[in-house]
Amino acid sequence: MSENKIPYKIYLSEEEMPTAWYNVRADMKNKPAPLLNPGTLEPMKAEELEGVFCSELVKQELNNDDRYIEIPQTIRDFYKMYRPSPLVRAYCLEEKLGTPAKIYYKFEGNNTSGSHKLNSAIAQAYYAKQQGLSGVTTETGAGQWGTALSMACAYLGLDCKVYMVKCSYEQKPFRREVMRTYGADVTPSPSNTTNVGRAILEQFPGTTGSLGCAISEAVEAAVSSGGKYRYVLGSVLSQVLLHQSVIGLETKTALDKYGITPDIIIGCAGGGSNLGGLISPFMGEKLRGEKDYRFIAVEPASCPSLTRGKFAYDFCDTGKVCPLAKMYTLGSGFIPSANHAGGLRYHGMSSILSQLYHDGYMEAVSVEQTSVFEAAEMFARIEGILPAPESSHAIRVAIDEALKCKETGEEKTIVFGLTGTGYFDMVAYEKFNNGEMVDYIPTDEELEKSFAQMPKVDK
Amino acid sequence: MSENKIPYKIYLSEEEMPTAWYNVRADMKNKPAPLLNPGTLEPMKAEELEGVFCSELVKQELNNDDRYIEIPQTIRDFYKMYRPSPLVRAYCLEEKLGTPAKIYYKFEGNNTSGSHKLNSAIAQAYYAKQQGLSGVTTETGAGQWGTALSMACAYLGLDCKVYMVKCSYEQKPFRREVMRTYGADVTPSPSNTTNVGRAILEQFPGTTGSLGCAISEAVEAAVSSGGKYRYVLGSVLSQVLLHQSVIGLETKTALDKYGITPDIIIGCAGGGSNLGGLISPFMGEKLRGEKDYRFIAVEPASCPSLTRGKFAYDFCDTGKVCPLAKMYTLGSGFIPSANHAGGLRYHGMSSILSQLYHDGYMEAVSVEQTSVFEAAEMFARIEGILPAPESSHAIRVAIDEALKCKETGEEKTIVFGLTGTGYFDMVAYEKFNNGEMVDYIPTDEELEKSFAQMPKVDK
Repeated sequence: MSENKIPYKIYLSEEEMPTAWYNVRADMKNKPAPLLNPGTLEPMKAEELEGVFCSELVKQELNNDDRYIEIPQTIRDFYKMYRPSPLVRAYCLEEKLGTPAKIYYKFEGNNTSGSHKLNSAIAQAYYAKQQGLSGVTTETGAGQWGTALSMACAYLGLDCKVYMVKCSYEQKPFRREVMRTYGADVTPSPSNTTNVGRAILEQFPGTTGSLGCAISEAVEAAVSSGGKYRYVLGSVLSQVLLHQSVIGLETKTALDKYGITPDIIIGCAGGGSNLGGLISPFMGEKLRGEKDYRFIAVEPASCPSLTRGKFAYDFCDTGKVCPLAKMYTLGSGFIPSANHAGGLRYHGMSSILSQLYHDGYMEAVSVEQTSVFEAAEMFARIEGILPAPESSHAIRVAIDEALKCKETGEEKTIVFGLTGTGYFDMVAYEKFNNGEMVDYIPTDEELEKSFAQMPKVDK
Repeated sequence: MSENKIPYKIYLSEEEMPTAWYNVRADMKNKPAPLLNPGTLEPMKAEELEGVFCSELVKQELNNDDRYIEIPQTIRDFYKMYRPSPLVRAYCLEEKLGTPAKIYYKFEGNNTSGSHKLNSAIAQAYYAKQQGLSGVTTETGAGQWGTALSMACAYLGLDCKVYMVKCSYEQKPFRREVMRTYGADVTPSPSNTTNVGRAILEQFPGTTGSLGCAISEAVEAAVSSGGKYRYVLGSVLSQVLLHQSVIGLETKTALDKYGITPDIIIGCAGGGSNLGGLISPFMGEKLRGEKDYRFIAVEPASCPSLTRGKFAYDFCDTGKVCPLAKMYTLGSGFIPSANHAGGLRYHGMSSILSQLYHDGYMEAVSVEQTSVFEAAEMFARIEGILPAPESSHAIRVAIDEALKCKETGEEKTIVFGLTGTGYFDMVAYEKFNNGEMVDYIPTDEELEKSFAQMPKVDK
């Protein structure tokens, strides 16, 4: 094992780190559909979006053409504090599984936010600072995005207001303290601090919240700040996939350095930030007809937007204050069961990934949470990293694909995204350790009921 | 900043990783005093120690002569999963402080145990496995050692019984779940499961425990296992400093690669595992008269063994079942105030470090916990890593030394050990965030009372 020429961990040097983000939209024949104004149902113009988002980020959001966008030096310097992230060869896991497959994972958890979210947080905070704003507002689910944004804001000296999905706020008390240590202001959502929060609480008393609710509250807080704040979002948006392309670019450089071509690339998918970032440069090659890869999006069976959702225009948030996006969605009113402990709770999906999936460039599977935690425990014990529940969706499918190779004898090369660590998810692990975790799959009736609430847009 | 030739993070390649541990005792003129049998007060022989420790580890414990001891291939392979750890240039901290000093830290927190403890855990578990044992017993304070040992045991397929200091068990509920995820059996100490635990509970009902108590329980559990288990210890012992020399060896190789010679090397000191490991190869040069360095041990003002303790033979544990060691000690009955939240709660200190300190090769300072958490918060916001409270003792003094350089204009090179992350210490951070943290310094009377309980050994 140790004689192998490929090291356990491939680290790029600073010189090998990307200097520009890759914009996969430039290579898509069918571009993602534009965001629509929720009032007029017409495509949002830059000036409309600038009430919510920073101006430079609006440009990036609307930029379907430039293949590369330069990473500003301040962001590149910040990246150097916690990047490059290692591309790890899972020798121990391969041996344990007895598979001829070669398994690699790009590990994004070696920073205090515990995930890849920091890659976009620093970019969004940077542009807010450049624009002279006082601060930013956002929502957070598992808490990784909120932590990442708190870190970025502390570094740049910006205020950070975080609306945290209530069930996470309660399940992850220590996440709040990490964000507070970085100086953030954290409110459980739905809350009484916004109109939309009060309305949701009235309609659904006792709700444990959803990302969709929290987004609505954070947007309202920004829009009603008199221009001092803008809203930032950790996933779903095309600008986020752009920033997250740093994951895929580093992965590709590392693989190229050793002459490795992956057969399958796997990522968990909630809003699509990690998966989109990881696959972007590889997808670019596939779109340009240069190479072929299998891409697999893995989502929870309890929140199956790609595998059971509709490809249609829908609201990005529960409160219906945000623009509409064309995406695979379960309906903006969909809230996964409170039993669900694996993250990836968003009702929709990145428009870019939705379009790519719709056009047949990508596969998707859904997995149940007990099998996800079984994979997580196995991975922790063998590879020594306690994974985030979100990331463990990708681990589950990577293991399944490696076991298929064991049956067929194929020596496939599998790359998956290990988005982060589970250190703040121990309530979920405790449930699993105690044998108290149950699975949950929404019924067709539940989904139909949710679909019926979606806006009817003929585009 | 970014034009500088030294990268933010120096990672060694696998080929540059150490293949042998360095044994600083080989270069000490005054060797650390031998362990004594608590009954006879005679030096412990190998065969006596083998009832408690694995045979190979006993050899390492008693080996004052061999300068290098080869690292077995299995351990080297395991090291490759989470090592080499980065040596980080703290560019951002330097800029914020406005100091001409150059600050580096060796960051050991990028693994699930969250600390350097894994370096010795895998070694000790490996030798237990080699000897055909069923498992190991141990104590843990902050939980880092217990987690590290659980990880090592899961990897090698050994049972792991952990006695966890009760105040940590209560302050860090999620640590228990991490250990359970790795298959460990965790008991709060003092407990009713051992004779010594029952005796301590009777004498001090409601005690929050101490490392000393937990050690006694773990030793009893091993000794009364009919030979199936041995006891392993995460600090204090000379074998642990040997294994931890991997930290210093990597640091030295990384510095040498860039032609950097440190002026000051700083580490936090509880039992001495990290500090001893970090400084060992540099201390070797100093002992051999090849180079000079300033070494600074940093300990909490609430548990000041080097700065206010006695250099004398004392029990390593509260229950007085372990051998006696000659060391700086506050008395084996000393238990820091329950207010103390910064770790490093051990009453004694590595015999190696004690001897070196006694012989004038090393300095020591003590710091109060509110100033430690101020440094921790500052570091988190600037360098992006939320540090363990233990590690933050070293950060505090590194910052203080860098600020002295700002006054004098000296361009000193400061290296400190960042032993780990504080993700499981959020109860302590919460106390600090809420302004509820208080300092505590034992009075001379308290220490005299504790010293009076120490054994009288004329050696």
